[in-house]
Amino acid sequence: MKRDVGAELNIEITDETTLEFQIAVAPQPGAQVTESLSFTLNGREIPLSEIHEISGEHGNRIHTFEAPVGNLEVKYSATVIGHADPPPVRDLDLSTYLRPSRYAEADKFFGFAATEFGDIADSVELLEKVPAWVGARLSYVPGSSDPIDGAADTLLAGSGVCRDYAHLVIALLRAVNVPARLVSVYAPGCQPMDFHAVAEAFVDGQWRVVDATCLAPRQSMVRIATGRDAADTAWLDNHKGSITVNNMVVTATVDGDLPRDAIEQLVSIR
Amino acid sequence: MKRDVGAELNIEITDETTLEFQIAVAPQPGAQVTESLSFTLNGREIPLSEIHEISGEHGNRIHTFEAPVGNLEVKYSATVIGHADPPPVRDLDLSTYLRPSRYAEADKFFGFAATEFGDIADSVELLEKVPAWVGARLSYVPGSSDPIDGAADTLLAGSGVCRDYAHLVIALLRAVNVPARLVSVYAPGCQPMDFHAVAEAFVDGQWRVVDATCLAPRQSMVRIATGRDAADTAWLDNHKGSITVNNMVVTATVDGDLPRDAIEQLVSIR
Amino acid sequence: MKRDVGAELNIEITDETTLEFQIAVAPQPGAQVTESLSFTLNGREIPLSEIHEISGEHGNRIHTFEAPVGNLEVKYSATVIGHADPPPVRDLDLSTYLRPSRYAEADKFFGFAATEFGDIADSVELLEKVPAWVGARLSYVPGSSDPIDGAADTLLAGSGVCRDYAHLVIALLRAVNVPARLVSVYAPGCQPMDFHAVAEAFVDGQWRVVDATCLAPRQSMVRIATGRDAADTAWLDNHKGSITVNNMVVTATVDGDLPRDAIEQLVSIR
Amino acid sequence: MKRDVGAELNIEITDETTLEFQIAVAPQPGAQVTESLSFTLNGREIPLSEIHEISGEHGNRIHTFEAPVGNLEVKYSATVIGHADPPPVRDLDLSTYLRPSRYAEADKFFGFAATEFGDIADSVELLEKVPAWVGARLSYVPGSSDPIDGAADTLLAGSGVCRDYAHLVIALLRAVNVPARLVSVYAPGCQPMDFHAVAEAFVDGQWRVVDATCLAPRQSMVRIATGRDAADTAWLDNHKGSITVNNMVVTATVDGDLPRDAIEQLVSIR
Repeated sequence: MKRDVGAELNIEITDETTLEFQIAVAPQPGAQVTESLSFTLNGREIPLSEIHEISGEHGNRIHTFEAPVGNLEVKYSATVIGHADPPPVRDLDLSTYLRPSRYAEADKFFGFAATEFGDIADSVELLEKVPAWVGARLSYVPGSSDPIDGAADTLLAGSGVCRDYAHLVIALLRAVNVPARLVSVYAPGCQPMDFHAVAEAFVDGQWRVVDATCLAPRQSMVRIATGRDAADTAWLDNHKGSITVNNMVVTATVDGDLPRDAIEQLVSIR
Repeated sequence: MKRDVGAELNIEITDETTLEFQIAVAPQPGAQVTESLSFTLNGREIPLSEIHEISGEHGNRIHTFEAPVGNLEVKYSATVIGHADPPPVRDLDLSTYLRPSRYAEADKFFGFAATEFGDIADSVELLEKVPAWVGARLSYVPGSSDPIDGAADTLLAGSGVCRDYAHLVIALLRAVNVPARLVSVYAPGCQPMDFHAVAEAFVDGQWRVVDATCLAPRQSMVRIATGRDAADTAWLDNHKGSITVNNMVVTATVDGDLPRDAIEQLVSIR
Repeated sequence: MKRDVGAELNIEITDETTLEFQIAVAPQPGAQVTESLSFTLNGREIPLSEIHEISGEHGNRIHTFEAPVGNLEVKYSATVIGHADPPPVRDLDLSTYLRPSRYAEADKFFGFAATEFGDIADSVELLEKVPAWVGARLSYVPGSSDPIDGAADTLLAGSGVCRDYAHLVIALLRAVNVPARLVSVYAPGCQPMDFHAVAEAFVDGQWRVVDATCLAPRQSMVRIATGRDAADTAWLDNHKGSITVNNMVVTATVDGDLPRDAIEQLVSIR
Repeated sequence: MKRDVGAELNIEITDETTLEFQIAVAPQPGAQVTESLSFTLNGREIPLSEIHEISGEHGNRIHTFEAPVGNLEVKYSATVIGHADPPPVRDLDLSTYLRPSRYAEADKFFGFAATEFGDIADSVELLEKVPAWVGARLSYVPGSSDPIDGAADTLLAGSGVCRDYAHLVIALLRAVNVPARLVSVYAPGCQPMDFHAVAEAFVDGQWRVVDATCLAPRQSMVRIATGRDAADTAWLDNHKGSITVNNMVVTATVDGDLPRDAIEQLVSIR
């Protein structure tokens, strides 16, 4: 499979600030990746030496830019040929991803999750039941949620976008003792096309991808960033000055037909 | 039916304060009530002229006492012979008790309630389904909840005491458009014996009592205070100084056998 | 003083529903009021006999309409000549408006309020300090808050609209033992003109109006609805069907110059 | 300086479960550490080969035990001679520890923190002002907080224990753009003696320790675990079965006098 993915961002920077981007695909060991990244400020291309790349915990790549006031154009594209090896399984991750996190507050869900799912001992079954439950209870409504909303807010509101679906899945799975985390992905076939967020759960000895929104086939997703929740995987973090995103275009395609997905399949992001 | 109810409270007042008690039974039009109330401070009985009785919105009686430092003993007892008329139906109440309140934040539950119960149009059916659902999801665990917990906290925690059960029932009913409120009651048969809290919902033209804890038969409950939630019905409110409740004994009995209750019956507090 | 106030609303009703309006001015004993109210559905005026008026707890007027599908035009206007008597002081209110409520969760603020304001014993001083503190900490940003936000959310967010300012003032005042409540008003001079929300606190034997937004002089406000918080004073409540507010125009003027207001004055809504 | 630290735990395991302990001191490069760890189940010592040690993100050591039903006795002691090198500074950490986390929800505090501390540009000054502010606003009250409480709850409640103080400090610092994290420590001099939690902030090129409780001198603290908040540093995590901690004794002493601490000093955990 050949996948072409990318993003074009136009950002107005009104105060000097530090920007962190997570838009480049994660390392894809075993696959062949060609990519291009450019930053253009007020029409002048910035040497990549001024862009600092930090390697995150799972190899996810954070591009940091000390941004002066001005108009910033960021363009990223990548072609991924073949499939990456399945994500590695590390002991520490199985501990870390059981812990409650900012938007997947599993510790608030112990009682609720035990009642709804406590009698299911098999994690393969949980991997099917929990997202089906979440998908049935939530409506996908762009604009219905806030960036500070966590899984508890989403459960009550009954609506949200992809990150909200994923956070609720993650909180519920952790609460019944299944390690789970968030992955931002390029998702060919996603409608509307945008950066997509899915859950990844440790089931039957592997990290399996879970998408309660069912917006795109999991088999062709390309991993960007992996973390506890959206606090770790934002495509843009701005901690200081004031900025405005004027425009954002995300692309993700496969050559040929999209793969067929079915909720009962165990799929890894590759 | 003859019901004997009462409470004995011993309170240490360490700072001068204003105390409000709601321990006397509400007016019981149609029934025959004899009662006795005494306040004793440091062993000396206080003339009832120093106790101010405020009549609440549904006739509930608030006894206010400007308390100096000292040890306060409060004793209340009442005998209720016969049954009161069913609670009156006022237009304003049907509006007020649809509104979200402090501990029954119905506005947070619109999405969740619509998914769980939105396809049930009949309020008689809702009156059976909602408390059954709440009763199945919560465990009665004394000490498991905080006084500042609302229905959303209770839903997640999966446990609570009578007021938590009632708040969750009320929030869910209001969210599907059934007026609902909290009633504090003396509840013969309740185990452990204590002040009890139940929900009251407007169904089929009358206010019907709902007790998702199923701790006591509804037919012999005696109404104390009625309001939006526990903020309106506390047996003791202390807004200023520091106090300690040393002891509290609640009694509630019927002559003869306790009535038999069944969840599918429509019962009013009388 | 002569005040002209009013509102014109255009509402699309897509499902049959019950609508409750609180747009008519409260009874103004001592002043002279002339008013007009009309409901027009799909271009045809509805006889006022089909509009049910419920009298709320403080005389506030709730106009209820069983709305079929269609386009509803509501027009209200009133002229108030002279000033109403100051709001009456009722024992029960002094108890009720100390209680925590949905959006003014005073019980969550006991610790915080005691630290910030606990050493101020005088309620006249609190009436000046609390709104000044709130006004300094919040930014007025339309669209920055959600309808389900309470005072705790507002404190953290540091921004909101008039109801958020009022809720935070009310929560803090109650937490330091000053009865406080919400009043919706027509507010001549308010920019942008809209239904306005202010707090009312019981200080020095009277209900005094508090407006931490300082958007309009308090002396010319006209009372609409009074209650615990915005749950009681919404200009429109819709509990069932789906509606869209197409348009809303609020007007409020005085003849002559606007009164001059100063934060240290004790003012009642009249 | 020579420090002797340790813990003795007695735990009743009523359901088979997996336990994770973080009670061993972190690697102390540059210092000399001798230590001993034993697990005894129902009076029989368990070979250390059955205890799995996972190395956490900052080298913190997680001891995992697949626990059958029974009584578990855990004993740990360590002697640390000399001081460890100051904690290393990694690029990724400066990004990670600006992110909001479960109990230090910095994203909820942006507005509030900007108002209280937004005009302080110097991180050295923030490091003094923020903990002083937190220390002045909170009361140390054992039992006053819940394990699910985050910094927002603590701010409102106005009370808590060491982890609550640290979470509020961390949330506020992150919200004004200072990387901050939680460290669990052995703290000689702490009264009452227990596992202690402090904040660590990146200021003036180094990680500096912040203890708003002022319960123990920072110079003699010994690092156990480092992470985003208490979700990462719990001395015991139990994700499955039911357990009871019967007893816990923590010890931490220095030879000679305790160091003198002063809030304006910049101190690193060593």
